[in-house]
Amino acid sequence: MDVRSTIGRHVLAELHGCDAEILNDPERLRPLMLQAAERAKAHVIGEVTRRYAPQGVTCLLVLAESHFSLHTWPEARYAAADFYTCGSLLPELALELLRDGLMATRFDLLSVERGRPEAPPFKIQGR
Amino acid sequence: MDVRSTIGRHVLAELHGCDAEILNDPERLRPLMLQAAERAKAHVIGEVTRRYAPQGVTCLLVLAESHFSLHTWPEARYAAADFYTCGSLLPELALELLRDGLMATRFDLLSVERGRPEAPPFKIQGR
Repeated sequence: MDVRSTIGRHVLAELHGCDAEILNDPERLRPLMLQAAERAKAHVIGEVTRRYAPQGVTCLLVLAESHFSLHTWPEARYAAADFYTCGSLLPELALELLRDGLMATRFDLLSVERGRPEAPPFKIQGR
Repeated sequence: MDVRSTIGRHVLAELHGCDAEILNDPERLRPLMLQAAERAKAHVIGEVTRRYAPQGVTCLLVLAESHFSLHTWPEARYAAADFYTCGSLLPELALELLRDGLMATRFDLLSVERGRPEAPPFKIQGR
């Protein structure tokens, strides 16, 4: 599939101070994730959403370009996301849409280059 | 759910020099992933496996403790995995089983602490 190359970018996002109600509602999180994936121009080819007891949600999207995940902890107003792309997508756009949709007050990203044929195995950029 | 805490550990694995045939076979990768998850004492509560055209496979497991993903590039004998756990699992055990099952000749791990209530947002350990 021509959108896939071994060189990938794996962006991890920390989202603090989010809206607890949204974080606990799969009916809002799933469309938000799909919208965010679309914003990054990703192609969703599979998905799983699960709600935990007593609270929290996981939403995983399989992309033609790899994956996009969200895990939420409503009790801590915290969510963790990661976006792995091996195409020319812009995962930051998806994660920023997630930040806005979850109303996060603190938002941190870490970008890790993956699939490097030579050392060092991981090339990291924080911001 | 008591196995979940906001503090999590996200371990990224790079697997080079793998067996190309195995990397292209979802019928072998899916059971390998399930076995690896079990080795880490993870609880699988959802899953998606997709095969790409012309080659490559993605397998995503939703865990009670977060997620475990695998993306493969048979043409480059390369696979990328990540294991996010917010419980007391040992993701390294799962990733080492994956390394052996895929017959990787190069194996690198990066461990990122997630969900930290205070700065720095990401605490990283390579090896």
